[in-house]
Amino acid sequence: MYALGDDLTVVNAAKVSFAAQQTELDDKGKGLINYLLTNKHATPFEHVLFQFHIKCPIFVAREWFRHRWSSFNEMSMRYHVPESLEFFIPNEDAIRKQVGKPGHYTFEKIEDPAVYDFVTEKFEEVYRVAESNYYEMIEAGIAKEIARCVIPVGQYTEFIWTVNLRSLLNFLSLRNEVNAQREIQQFAEAVEQIITPYVPVVMKTFIDNQRQAI
Amino acid sequence: MYALGDDLTVVNAAKVSFAAQQTELDDKGKGLINYLLTNKHATPFEHVLFQFHIKCPIFVAREWFRHRWSSFNEMSMRYHVPESLEFFIPNEDAIRKQVGKPGHYTFEKIEDPAVYDFVTEKFEEVYRVAESNYYEMIEAGIAKEIARCVIPVGQYTEFIWTVNLRSLLNFLSLRNEVNAQREIQQFAEAVEQIITPYVPVVMKTFIDNQRQAI
Amino acid sequence: MYALGDDLTVVNAAKVSFAAQQTELDDKGKGLINYLLTNKHATPFEHVLFQFHIKCPIFVAREWFRHRWSSFNEMSMRYHVPESLEFFIPNEDAIRKQVGKPGHYTFEKIEDPAVYDFVTEKFEEVYRVAESNYYEMIEAGIAKEIARCVIPVGQYTEFIWTVNLRSLLNFLSLRNEVNAQREIQQFAEAVEQIITPYVPVVMKTFIDNQRQAI
Amino acid sequence: MYALGDDLTVVNAAKVSFAAQQTELDDKGKGLINYLLTNKHATPFEHVLFQFHIKCPIFVAREWFRHRWSSFNEMSMRYHVPESLEFFIPNEDAIRKQVGKPGHYTFEKIEDPAVYDFVTEKFEEVYRVAESNYYEMIEAGIAKEIARCVIPVGQYTEFIWTVNLRSLLNFLSLRNEVNAQREIQQFAEAVEQIITPYVPVVMKTFIDNQRQAI
Repeated sequence: MYALGDDLTVVNAAKVSFAAQQTELDDKGKGLINYLLTNKHATPFEHVLFQFHIKCPIFVAREWFRHRWSSFNEMSMRYHVPESLEFFIPNEDAIRKQVGKPGHYTFEKIEDPAVYDFVTEKFEEVYRVAESNYYEMIEAGIAKEIARCVIPVGQYTEFIWTVNLRSLLNFLSLRNEVNAQREIQQFAEAVEQIITPYVPVVMKTFIDNQRQAI
Repeated sequence: MYALGDDLTVVNAAKVSFAAQQTELDDKGKGLINYLLTNKHATPFEHVLFQFHIKCPIFVAREWFRHRWSSFNEMSMRYHVPESLEFFIPNEDAIRKQVGKPGHYTFEKIEDPAVYDFVTEKFEEVYRVAESNYYEMIEAGIAKEIARCVIPVGQYTEFIWTVNLRSLLNFLSLRNEVNAQREIQQFAEAVEQIITPYVPVVMKTFIDNQRQAI
Repeated sequence: MYALGDDLTVVNAAKVSFAAQQTELDDKGKGLINYLLTNKHATPFEHVLFQFHIKCPIFVAREWFRHRWSSFNEMSMRYHVPESLEFFIPNEDAIRKQVGKPGHYTFEKIEDPAVYDFVTEKFEEVYRVAESNYYEMIEAGIAKEIARCVIPVGQYTEFIWTVNLRSLLNFLSLRNEVNAQREIQQFAEAVEQIITPYVPVVMKTFIDNQRQAI
Repeated sequence: MYALGDDLTVVNAAKVSFAAQQTELDDKGKGLINYLLTNKHATPFEHVLFQFHIKCPIFVAREWFRHRWSSFNEMSMRYHVPESLEFFIPNEDAIRKQVGKPGHYTFEKIEDPAVYDFVTEKFEEVYRVAESNYYEMIEAGIAKEIARCVIPVGQYTEFIWTVNLRSLLNFLSLRNEVNAQREIQQFAEAVEQIITPYVPVVMKTFIDNQRQAI
């Protein structure tokens, strides 16, 4: 992970308005961060930047790539044949049912171990056939970009993600949240933990404000 | 498909620079469109807008959604269980091999009907198992967002796409092109045909200029 | 002003998630609009589009152009010499002082007619000298792009603005607001009034929610 | 100026497609940069970032801020009263006339020293009146945001600019170019010189390719 800037970068970007700058983050600077976050002054957060190398299932990546104020470069199976495929299988805690109506869905863990075994078996069967048929087509000389069509969205992909702190806070407000799919929510949680040491005051204030996007 | 604006919209957006407007597209207007396209004056093309309802395989949609100066709303299998799944299977013309090196790939049709039968069988087998296991999990009460993980990227999805003409020309320059994957290239071709009656002068000029993005 | 789409467009963009569409805006559709606006589901609002021809002072345009998810083409004095310059002069109601501290400024009308006369005179004197010297340089054959440097930011400019409803609501949340400069706030108010007949349910819901951006 | 990334960052962003990375920039990497730049593969350039503190006249800043894939925070005279105003006055080399037709303008230096004196005098007169009347209004307690209306676009402003290398190359292709206004062209030239040591291979290739945007 790479980072450019910190809490003070945000403060100084805001203080450009007043043709002022400060060299240390004092209490007034912390107060300013709180003011910016709670009063829709979003642009100062754009001058802090992060870069990640992410590995996640395709169905997670598809949600991630909806965040347009971001830069992505992704592994492509038009060009690359992995040595083996690697797939997401939910662990026991992730086996759940969806309850409630559209707009008000919640999820409940299914505690029955037989259901966990059933899901695992259903996943593995599809993945096994997909992997085997994919490599058979590759070996038969079929173009990679055709052979890949059979691969399930549970397959892992990799990408570089470069994003500024404003866009990243928006990502967290939508994805580290109870309505987000559990699987992307766990990635968002990890992203939040990774960046917190770089911008501790921003993150504390953001979380105190219920992770509202700016 | 919905459209806002036409060739004249582009001309008048450019002529705002001179505080001038015209009510009909004359030869000078056509010359101006050519000038704008070949001299990197891209913003006047942003005032013409198109809206499409697209149905395509997920692997095509994934490339489509990389175009960030666009608006998308897509069918989500977190919320929706289709009555049946619908999958892409390449037709005989699409069975191809990839030749050449990275950056210089080309594709050659494989003429052997046995290969076509082989590919079809490999596709159908994966799709059959994926569909069957998906619906078994749905019937067992597993959350839709979990069950969907096994679905291959060959499945059809649907989305609304709203895009301005500048971004659309950029899309065509990258996707209606020899290096694009054949399957998205065919969609790009169709999009190009659909919009041409709305902006015939822009499209003629764009094609005369080898579909260069502005 | 041109528009593409209406309240129903927003509803149907959201319902694509469920592979559903409706042909009339019923109470459930209105409820959905409220749900989207209050739950950070912003993308369905991107499929409704507006196009305006704006005439406003340069200092207002400078704030307007900060809204990046927008398309602009503006009159340019690199290319165009107006027959006469046209300048903003505050009316009596607009003569005000700024009170309070940074982040908490408010404004109070100055009721004294002598102050109004004083301000008018100060404005007119600068404008008179600027206009006269500008045209003298133009007549002397100086490049327009040089001569324009002396023109005050109170001069009126013109531009075309194309924007989707999501970005427009963000504009209104920041500019039709007590902290915005009065002069852009009045334009934002006018924009709001103009679009309301096109998307009455969205606008009623937006205003009921204190014009929060999505 | 701050920077994140270098030539190798571009190469590795591109090589993510192949799930490959390299630790040093070799000849193949340089070849890849050339391939990316000349074949419309723009996204790998988005992972290199630059941050500048710019001081330039308002009329230059207005062109600069048209580049939307950028982040800006600017000094605001709604909030800040400078101790004195600082204005752009063209030097002798910059005194020019515009010749040719729209779309084909060129500029020719006016060699006559009397013209230089004339222009300087016209500029200084406007600036003197504007500055004097501005401070008179400020001293009379008029709100800063009103008093500033009389300030010419030749006044210097300051801003922070954060931009990725793709957007920056697009900026250079439009602004370090013969059709750009001389005054912004000089800033673009300086920006180009400043970043070149950070991404020497990209910049050499970009210039060899006539500064075409990707």
